[in-house]
Amino acid sequence: MYKLPDRSSGTSFDTIGILTSGGDAPGMNAAIRALVRAALNQKIKVYGIQRGFAGLIGGDMRRMSSASVSNIIQRGGTLLKSNRCEAFKTVEGRHQAAEALRKKGIQALICIGGDGTLTGAHLLARESGMTVIGLPCTIDNDIYGSDDSIGFDTAVNTAIDAIDRIRDTALSHERLFLVEVMGRKSGFIATQVGIACGAEMILIPEYPRALDSISHTLASNRKAGRGSSGIIVVAEGTEPGLTERLAGYLRQHGEEPRICILGHIQRGGSPTGHDRVLASCMGATAINYLQAGYTDVMVATLGRELIPAPLGDITARRKHDPRLSELVMLLHK
Amino acid sequence: MYKLPDRSSGTSFDTIGILTSGGDAPGMNAAIRALVRAALNQKIKVYGIQRGFAGLIGGDMRRMSSASVSNIIQRGGTLLKSNRCEAFKTVEGRHQAAEALRKKGIQALICIGGDGTLTGAHLLARESGMTVIGLPCTIDNDIYGSDDSIGFDTAVNTAIDAIDRIRDTALSHERLFLVEVMGRKSGFIATQVGIACGAEMILIPEYPRALDSISHTLASNRKAGRGSSGIIVVAEGTEPGLTERLAGYLRQHGEEPRICILGHIQRGGSPTGHDRVLASCMGATAINYLQAGYTDVMVATLGRELIPAPLGDITARRKHDPRLSELVMLLHK
Amino acid sequence: MYKLPDRSSGTSFDTIGILTSGGDAPGMNAAIRALVRAALNQKIKVYGIQRGFAGLIGGDMRRMSSASVSNIIQRGGTLLKSNRCEAFKTVEGRHQAAEALRKKGIQALICIGGDGTLTGAHLLARESGMTVIGLPCTIDNDIYGSDDSIGFDTAVNTAIDAIDRIRDTALSHERLFLVEVMGRKSGFIATQVGIACGAEMILIPEYPRALDSISHTLASNRKAGRGSSGIIVVAEGTEPGLTERLAGYLRQHGEEPRICILGHIQRGGSPTGHDRVLASCMGATAINYLQAGYTDVMVATLGRELIPAPLGDITARRKHDPRLSELVMLLHK
Amino acid sequence: MYKLPDRSSGTSFDTIGILTSGGDAPGMNAAIRALVRAALNQKIKVYGIQRGFAGLIGGDMRRMSSASVSNIIQRGGTLLKSNRCEAFKTVEGRHQAAEALRKKGIQALICIGGDGTLTGAHLLARESGMTVIGLPCTIDNDIYGSDDSIGFDTAVNTAIDAIDRIRDTALSHERLFLVEVMGRKSGFIATQVGIACGAEMILIPEYPRALDSISHTLASNRKAGRGSSGIIVVAEGTEPGLTERLAGYLRQHGEEPRICILGHIQRGGSPTGHDRVLASCMGATAINYLQAGYTDVMVATLGRELIPAPLGDITARRKHDPRLSELVMLLHK
Repeated sequence: MYKLPDRSSGTSFDTIGILTSGGDAPGMNAAIRALVRAALNQKIKVYGIQRGFAGLIGGDMRRMSSASVSNIIQRGGTLLKSNRCEAFKTVEGRHQAAEALRKKGIQALICIGGDGTLTGAHLLARESGMTVIGLPCTIDNDIYGSDDSIGFDTAVNTAIDAIDRIRDTALSHERLFLVEVMGRKSGFIATQVGIACGAEMILIPEYPRALDSISHTLASNRKAGRGSSGIIVVAEGTEPGLTERLAGYLRQHGEEPRICILGHIQRGGSPTGHDRVLASCMGATAINYLQAGYTDVMVATLGRELIPAPLGDITARRKHDPRLSELVMLLHK
Repeated sequence: MYKLPDRSSGTSFDTIGILTSGGDAPGMNAAIRALVRAALNQKIKVYGIQRGFAGLIGGDMRRMSSASVSNIIQRGGTLLKSNRCEAFKTVEGRHQAAEALRKKGIQALICIGGDGTLTGAHLLARESGMTVIGLPCTIDNDIYGSDDSIGFDTAVNTAIDAIDRIRDTALSHERLFLVEVMGRKSGFIATQVGIACGAEMILIPEYPRALDSISHTLASNRKAGRGSSGIIVVAEGTEPGLTERLAGYLRQHGEEPRICILGHIQRGGSPTGHDRVLASCMGATAINYLQAGYTDVMVATLGRELIPAPLGDITARRKHDPRLSELVMLLHK
Repeated sequence: MYKLPDRSSGTSFDTIGILTSGGDAPGMNAAIRALVRAALNQKIKVYGIQRGFAGLIGGDMRRMSSASVSNIIQRGGTLLKSNRCEAFKTVEGRHQAAEALRKKGIQALICIGGDGTLTGAHLLARESGMTVIGLPCTIDNDIYGSDDSIGFDTAVNTAIDAIDRIRDTALSHERLFLVEVMGRKSGFIATQVGIACGAEMILIPEYPRALDSISHTLASNRKAGRGSSGIIVVAEGTEPGLTERLAGYLRQHGEEPRICILGHIQRGGSPTGHDRVLASCMGATAINYLQAGYTDVMVATLGRELIPAPLGDITARRKHDPRLSELVMLLHK
Repeated sequence: MYKLPDRSSGTSFDTIGILTSGGDAPGMNAAIRALVRAALNQKIKVYGIQRGFAGLIGGDMRRMSSASVSNIIQRGGTLLKSNRCEAFKTVEGRHQAAEALRKKGIQALICIGGDGTLTGAHLLARESGMTVIGLPCTIDNDIYGSDDSIGFDTAVNTAIDAIDRIRDTALSHERLFLVEVMGRKSGFIATQVGIACGAEMILIPEYPRALDSISHTLASNRKAGRGSSGIIVVAEGTEPGLTERLAGYLRQHGEEPRICILGHIQRGGSPTGHDRVLASCMGATAINYLQAGYTDVMVATLGRELIPAPLGDITARRKHDPRLSELVMLLHK
């Protein structure tokens, strides 16, 4: 539960735009709903921009009403649709986007997405002077400056649910499963999921291990009668092709591992309570930040607080949480 | 809801054994529970045989009580564990198994599993004269002689749940997904899942199609504004490597398909109501069949009835349901 | 999986209307989708009538396109909304409804709902000569003439999921829970749910029992060490106030039962695979029946077949399945 | 993700006991598992005490091994069983408990439960000098000194899932539902659930409102076209009988509200990822606290940190979070 800041009357906006961009994440719709409702409460007109930055450049936007966001808080995906847009990675593309906004009379833009999206948002703000607020929304939780991101909790629970099923088979057949989860270059999903599933081992980019060391740990566990869950969780970004190579290596050493790549099921589904509340509070807060005169920031979490965090930092720095490797090390011991 | 047959007092058994073998399926535990409870009600002693036919040959079995099957009706996997056993595929192996049963004083064996398991059960019955009853239990629903099998309904619902998530992303990104589901050489899972998910196309072994024909149908759908779900369901047994080849072909023709292979998540999880009731009724019926003097049969479903079906037919024939291709054709039209 | 009948070209329709009425059930949207898509495939125009018979009398209807039923197959509730309508219970009201249909040029009406809805549909057909087809859609599965109804399987699974949670507490506290499930005057839900949850006892209208007999069975179970699940499933229609009276009675006899009334959670939620496929096949079949010249019938299931069943029988007879009491008796023994 | 403290070698324990007491909560098993595994890693022997304080007084305890907590991290309820114990509320009862522990050679006790349990734990520590550590584990999240408690996140998600179903009906019938959720004297569950479900109104003990004021707000919403979700979430502890009285009041003012009391389904079920990780980290930390010499404290969360919080404060103070009323006020505006 987050404390919402008081509304400052410093700046007033007549019309804003909202878009979702990059990989979709559960909670995007809840964020859209909160933004639209909070803006309308403040008598601000809202345009929903279709298909992310591509739709922005193309001027594909439509007015949103309170009714247009009814009954969407529980839905996965994004009703504004999303896209990856090459044009927006160029100065020229961003210039066109700013023009499209001005033409429509849109004074501020709110961008919902992961680090690609928020980086684009930052460049747009810097280059065009447009007021821009970001909402960190990615299942990977890899955005520098925010402890949490919309969609992470849901993706973790989806992966857990899948692995709980796989474990039924792992235990019934006394067989080892290598389960690859998403997370891009970070081990956030893998660590949370691995601990929650009682995994025997968790492999993450933050704590790389050699194949023989992995195999040795497994063998020690067998000897000590430990690690009977039969589940090894592998973060997709640990090393290219690690899951297959590990399976091959273990096969040579007497195991019969099976591979499961959870893939895109981790992106969708109805958001958890946590992600719905986070999205709702972040959405309402973004409108407050706007009115308080902020720009080029995202609504970030720091512990249980919502804070404005500079969008520029995201590009400059890489999120790193030493707790991940500590927890993983503890587990492997 | 099934009608349970009256108990005949023709044959009386003192001691029976139960095993699960082959790939695990949701509802195996519910079947074990029903068998144990129904047998104990008839004052029949029950041995639980560990790890399928391997444990049978090795004499790895233990007495089961009513309490040993408490609170398992809702659990995935099998508490008796399962295995694939090479030795049992030989006459010598089956001979050892029959000896192990006789040594323990076990007069009848109940085998829970798919067609490999039930084929083994049939050979044991024929060669050793042992009384054997089978329960069709496989997610693939590919057992000749029974409309339904324990685990099929659950696997269908698990796959549907996964695809509902994938569709959130498919719709948000307006992108095509090729989702490969299990089913071995049959399209039962794929057809049921594809219809339930509103798939644009379903590819099954029973109704093979050439790549260019598939691509042509997709293109026609695009033109007609149809098929917007973005989901193509592919049965794993349609053609080796079909999913990847189709993705490659479509990529050459302007699509950007993504591939998801649902894999082992389809095997586990808490069984649905349907599978729990089916397993419970089949378990109780198996004990009735025993007492009525049946052997070398499985408890099968015909519509809403449970009937004894000869285990020998499973090996001799291949289950084929023309409705699958009819429904799929209808969809593609 | 159902066999769909061949399309006869006997009768041709230009325009039809669809409505949902009475209590909502999961799968209503899947049925609407199938009807709309199948009708449009046959070049038939479709009006969606809002709020059931009330909207019909009021002429509240709008044209439906293929897109208007996109992405709804998985949604609970009904996008056409539903209602109970007093006016339609009068000849005058039904006369107005027929007029409203004729005014719009609607030649046939398809009604999705439970026995109140289908009874109304029958009277409309008989009195006005309007072509009417029904789809049995109720969680209670209490419609005479059809083994199955859309929504039943989902409601059963929802109740099972709830009771699985309650059992965690029942077992942890070694305490008895009386769980009341829906089903109106029938024990279909209760029996299916009770068996699937391993209930100690199931109380249904079809097999009434006196309080002291119930209490006696529980006491015998305790003595025999049976019935440890701690769950008694009570069908809401067994006897008015039974759950509370039973709780009171048991309290006087040394138990500390808790009561849970599952209530409206059983109506909603995403339909199961079974209900989606059933709704899809029934919807497509209804359009076939129309074109084959049927009227005053519903699409019913008989075992694994879809058949036309006269709507008039629903009012005249009460669905009764002796298997329910047999199964319940077996359990209590 | 929590940082685990370094292990101090200050104090060494040979044998400890673990119990769960009071209402069960999802995550109790995950906490037991973490405690047992962490203790065994430190060569500490562990006794599992059955049925909470009642079993403690009665000396009902057994040695736990690593295997005895295998495959339980995902299970609801508590394998140690739980109970409310009147005897332990007396000095004499607690004295007996301390004796039972000493007789078994147990040097420290870890108590998992809500405020009744932790209060008892505190009194035992103070009166007997026994080393006692608490783990806050209640769905209500009402324990002073800890932001979070094991089981809260799961209960919130279970209630959300139920209300998502109810909303299908609420929207289909355009009808108002009053949904009563658990939470004892606090509005934590209700507020989180209400926001996540897009409730029209949330009624909590921390922000009491008169019936006419509630009715007035609803009427204003109707006029303004707001609040179409049809869901009012009521915390059970707001006022005795509020839900029924509100329903009666609204009925007199032209609404037809339905009541749903979610009840015990909120206690059970597989814990969410959040609760599993929280329980795992708290369990490991409790063993660290023991070895660092702590007693009469619980493992509490402060933002994203785990801290030792005095058990004595729980009895002395009442947890209050002003954010609840702020958020609720904001919603009602």
